[in-house]
This record gives sequence, structure tokens and C-alpha cells, in this order.
Amino acid sequence: MGLITLTTDFGSSDWFVGAMKGVMVNVSGRNRIVDITHDIPPGDIMAGAFALASSYNYFPPGAIHVAVVDPGVGSSRPAIAVQTKSFVFVGPDNGVLSLALANEEVQGIHRIENEALFCHPVSRTFHGRDIFAPVAAHLGREAAIQDLGPATKKHVRLPWPNVQQQGDLAIGQVIYIDRFGNCVTNIPADSLADADKSRQAILYNGKLCPVKNYYGEVADHEPLALIGSSNYLEIAINGGNASKALPLKVGDAVSLKAE
Amino acid sequence: MGLITLTTDFGSSDWFVGAMKGVMVNVSGRNRIVDITHDIPPGDIMAGAFALASSYNYFPPGAIHVAVVDPGVGSSRPAIAVQTKSFVFVGPDNGVLSLALANEEVQGIHRIENEALFCHPVSRTFHGRDIFAPVAAHLGREAAIQDLGPATKKHVRLPWPNVQQQGDLAIGQVIYIDRFGNCVTNIPADSLADADKSRQAILYNGKLCPVKNYYGEVADHEPLALIGSSNYLEIAINGGNASKALPLKVGDAVSLKAE
Amino acid sequence: MGLITLTTDFGSSDWFVGAMKGVMVNVSGRNRIVDITHDIPPGDIMAGAFALASSYNYFPPGAIHVAVVDPGVGSSRPAIAVQTKSFVFVGPDNGVLSLALANEEVQGIHRIENEALFCHPVSRTFHGRDIFAPVAAHLGREAAIQDLGPATKKHVRLPWPNVQQQGDLAIGQVIYIDRFGNCVTNIPADSLADADKSRQAILYNGKLCPVKNYYGEVADHEPLALIGSSNYLEIAINGGNASKALPLKVGDAVSLKAE
Repeated sequence: MGLITLTTDFGSSDWFVGAMKGVMVNVSGRNRIVDITHDIPPGDIMAGAFALASSYNYFPPGAIHVAVVDPGVGSSRPAIAVQTKSFVFVGPDNGVLSLALANEEVQGIHRIENEALFCHPVSRTFHGRDIFAPVAAHLGREAAIQDLGPATKKHVRLPWPNVQQQGDLAIGQVIYIDRFGNCVTNIPADSLADADKSRQAILYNGKLCPVKNYYGEVADHEPLALIGSSNYLEIAINGGNASKALPLKVGDAVSLKAE
Repeated sequence: MGLITLTTDFGSSDWFVGAMKGVMVNVSGRNRIVDITHDIPPGDIMAGAFALASSYNYFPPGAIHVAVVDPGVGSSRPAIAVQTKSFVFVGPDNGVLSLALANEEVQGIHRIENEALFCHPVSRTFHGRDIFAPVAAHLGREAAIQDLGPATKKHVRLPWPNVQQQGDLAIGQVIYIDRFGNCVTNIPADSLADADKSRQAILYNGKLCPVKNYYGEVADHEPLALIGSSNYLEIAINGGNASKALPLKVGDAVSLKAE
Repeated sequence: MGLITLTTDFGSSDWFVGAMKGVMVNVSGRNRIVDITHDIPPGDIMAGAFALASSYNYFPPGAIHVAVVDPGVGSSRPAIAVQTKSFVFVGPDNGVLSLALANEEVQGIHRIENEALFCHPVSRTFHGRDIFAPVAAHLGREAAIQDLGPATKKHVRLPWPNVQQQGDLAIGQVIYIDRFGNCVTNIPADSLADADKSRQAILYNGKLCPVKNYYGEVADHEPLALIGSSNYLEIAINGGNASKALPLKVGDAVSLKAE
């Protein structure tokens, strides 16, 4: 029995995810399917990659992680499966797997070309249903990654914005905004490992946020910076929505000032 | 072990779907339950019927498909179960099952009246929980469709808008808009089977969309027409939302011009 | 094999629920996990408590109900597990469990402090993933509630607005609004048990709604009052959204006039 996770931008309002699951159950009724999320903004490869990278490692070894955010569906962009030490990753080769793979020891990459494993007829617009779902289900049943197609060496990697050090400032940016309006930055937790708690985060507009350990350490509706659950510096508002209230959006600069 | 799918307008923000699943697990812990969608617009029977018709056939034979979009709940509208060659369909007899049934060989229809299979007390507002969920779970366990109630001959069928042929024009309309803003029409794929790719779709406002095979065949943010994953002509915008940008809504005319 | 239900405000757009499930499957692949809802408004403890109270009892005895609406995460607020005659409830001790517990025979309450059962490192912002998920999975596998931490006597109870009797008026208020815009009040069904059907509900603004049995008993787009599926008086509009159209919001007064 395989464990298959799904991260897509197919949403929950249509039948797309249901059809994928039907195809998977049709291949094998013994796989367990777990949704990570289907509400990645349409076509937002970076958001999909970040969601996968933030969650895949909580699953047991052997899990098959499928990520489909695929604006190039139907074109010649390849589909790939990547074997790492602990997992298999399946998706379009457009970078959606790459933030997770950056943390993993890659053991092999195969292009997905074995049409015997697909759901026919294969549409030009919905490879989630016709290619990725059945291939993942076959991997969960008995197929090996070598059965999918020829080995390849490379996969597309998304650019990851580096934190810039400028004097006593670490200059980063917002990379993801969650449903609570918390703004996750690219400044890693270990920048703060031995942090003097008098440090402050500086937003693009000069606004200051004290670095704290948890939301309730500041008064209601006050902003703060803290280490979020993905181990990056996060800008939040206690009991409020930081993205809306400050406001902050993906790409906005956030700096961390050392004392 | 039965496989039960759910298509409803109960949404995900309340406990309604959770309560249905509780009732089903209470009847039998061995059924597998797969959500198709719960975000059909409230009371939109046509959208529910189209979602079910677009997905049910991807599930393995024997699946029990439950669809509950039921604005007449509590009134005297009957509840039915329909046995076809491969599946059982369960829902209110208001047409929500009918687009799927139009493709199926119907073998028998039974009214759902056997109160011994219901969850008591039966409310007047939530038959999803009190009637459809337990009945489906019983069907997945050991009940036969004959156990549900008396046989009947007919079921309510939704009107399906026919494509009008007018000279070299096939005149259809938008019947569904998905989360990406893609506008699915009632013009079937086989209208295009041997299509000269110079064909064009003509929107209600005279705007032209070239017929292509996949999104990336036109430039970013350009409109196109293509065969979607449900095998109907679809109006889309590469990397954009056709419904919002063109704009198009359900019922708007779309024509296909033969060369 | 345990049955675990989840009621949270983590939403479906991020990976939060997926990560919780990964942690749970990592503890044991044999538990069954059922979502009640993840779309409780952020931090709305009362809405989470009402959703749990409205659904938990439809699950079979032995179910482990996890509710995480936790604006105080990371602070010193305790986490608790509560054994009742039929279920175990797990969550922060902030009242989110209390409306369900008000109906239950409580047999024991334990603080959740046994770090050996947590997912490490434990973040300060996401105890759903790091504490509640693994603890629930351990309870579903073989842990007993006594293994979680020391017994305690009390738990936080949310205030529940009482219905005021004033002459021939029962004065209540809206306590929950569902996805259809139906406005659930705190006026219990048994206020109407032997109701003269000429009774009427009076909204805060003087508007009258006739008491009916089901939606279709009034004309399309007309308001009505009826007993909803949670056994409270509900204000609805047949085929419409009562909360938007009347309008009504949580806390608004609704009275029931005896004849």
C-alpha cells in the first residue's frame, strides 16, 4: 500500500481533484491519498513549491508526493519523477518540485513517458488526471520509477531569493502569505539562533516589528516578527491579518536588524 | 467494502460534510469515501449535475455516487437510487443525477423510502446527513437497491441546451465556468474531430478566439478555444481568467465557425 | 485502528492540514482521519466550538475529536484531552471543546504535557502539527489519556447566551451563520415542540418571519424561521441568503412570539 500526497492548484470548487482520485482508486484501491492543498493560486509555481517544501518531510519515508501546478500543460515541458533517499516526487518539470528537492539527496530522475501507465485518452489540458494521478497510483502499487521512462540528469530549479547582508542588516523579502495573513520571509530561523531579543524586523516602509517568540507576546492587533512553523522569519499581527493591515505582499522587502 | 463519492453544495466552511461522513462511518467503517466537490454554488442543480457527469466515470465499477444539491429538501420531492450497468447513483430526484445518467444504461430506479436505513430523527433541512449518507453507506455495506423502497420508472431530467447548426455556424453556449475561469460550452469535441485548425470560436460579442490544442499555443494573456478535459469546446485565456477578462458567463452564446 | 476527526481554522489554502495529517500517518498508518471543517474563521473559538458540538455526536463511539482554534498558541494556555463516556476530545483549553462537552458525561481531563508524544522540534506557532496531531494519533494507536499528562478538574467553558423569556416573547440571538446564509439562533427546538404553527420569529429590526417546517413552504426569496439540522431555530430565505438579504449577523437579536 502506497501513501500519495497531492499539492495542486485545481481548487475545490470543480471535480478536478475528485477525478484524479477516481483514476488513482481505479489503478489500486489500496493506496492512501492525503491532500496537502489544492488551493495554490492558479499557476503560481512558487507557491506550490513552497507548500510542498514546507510539508513533505512530515510524511513517513516511502511517501509519493505529487505536485501539479502546471500552466504549461499540453506543451512540450517534460513530466518527471524524482527518487530521493526517502520519497518519490512526481510532477511537471517546471520547478514546482525544486524547493523540496533542494533539501533532499536525489538518487535518480526519470521522465514520465510510459503511456501504458496513463489514463486514456490523454487530454491536452488535464495531465493531473490523465498522467500524474495514474502514474502515482502505479508507483504506490508496484511500478518502479525506472518503469516510467528514461533517466535524466537535470530538473528545473526555481530561483530562490538570497538574503543580502548589508552592514548590520539582513535584507530579505516576503515569499509566501498564509490564510491568516502571516507573511513568511526568506530569512531563515538560524539567523536568529542566538538572537538578542531586542532585535527588530524592518519592513519595506520603515515600520518596525519587535522579534518575539509567539503571537500573544504583543498586545492585540500589534505587529510582531517571529520564527514561523516553516523555520523562517514571519511578520504577523496578534489576532489580525498582517498582509492586509500593514500591508505586505510577496516580494516586499523585510530586513532584520542586528543589535 | 464500498466506494462512495460525494458531490454537494454543502461547502467546506461548516460541519455539514463532516456530519455526513460521521453518519456513514457509523453505518460501516469499511467504506471508502471520496469527495468530488462540496463547493457547487448553493442550489445550482445544473452545476452539480455537470460536475458529477464529468467525473463519475473515472471511478471503478461498483462505485456509489451520491449527489446532493437539494433546494427542495423537506418538500415532497422524492429521493432516488439508480442502478446502472457500472454504478449506483443516489440523490434527490431533481435532475442532479440526470446528466450522468444520460450516458449510462439504467437498469433500475428505486425511491428511497425505507426509514430503517435513515439516521433518526430525520430533519427537514438536511437529508444529506439523515437520508443520503446512511443509505449510501448501507449500499456500500450490504443493502441492495431493492431494499431502499419501491421501484419507479422515471427520473427528472435537466434540459440540456442543444447546439444549433446555422449555415457554417455551430451555435452553442457556456454551460460551466471552472475555478481557472475557463468557460466550458455545450459544443462537443467531435464537432472538431477532423477540425481544420483554422477554425475559430466566436463569442456572443463578436470577439474571435482561434481554436488551438493547448493553452501555451497562444501568447500569454491571449484568448483561445480548445477541447477541454470534459470533451467540450472551452474558451480560455493562456495564463488568465477568461470568464472575468472577456467576460463570459453561463448562458452566453459561443459559436464555432467551420471553414 | 482509531477514528480521528479534525475541526480547525487552518484553512485549505496552505499546507497546514496536510502537515498535520503527515504527522498523524507517521505515528500510525492505521488511523482513519475525517475532516469536519478547516474553515472556521481565523481565531473564532465560538464558531469552532459550535461546529464541533453540531457534528461530533454523529461519529461512532471511540472517535477522537481534535479541535484546534488556538489564537493563544505558544503562550501558557494549557492543552487538554477530555475523556467522556463515548469520545475523547483533544484541543487547547480555551473553550473550543466546551460546547460539545456541555452535552457529554465527562469522565476525566488530562493536561497534554508528555513531550515524548510530540513532534519535535515543537514550534511556538503550530501546535496543531507539533502537539495535537501526534497526540491524537497516539491515542488512536495505543496511548491512554493518562499517558498524556496530569489529571486536572476544570476546563474553560465558553459563555452561552441564554434565551430570555419576556412575557410572550422568547428573546434569543444569532449564534452562527452557515455557508447558505442561514442564521442559527440559540433558541432550542423544544421551545417549539408543540408549537402553534402560527408562531412568528421577530428579527432585531422588527421584521417578521413565519415559522415553517421546510424552506419550500414559503415563496422563492421569502424569509422564514424553521428548526434547523442542529435543533435550533434558524432564520432562512427560501432559495436565498438570509444573512446578506435581511441582513443578520452573529449577535443580532431574534425573538420567538408565542400565540
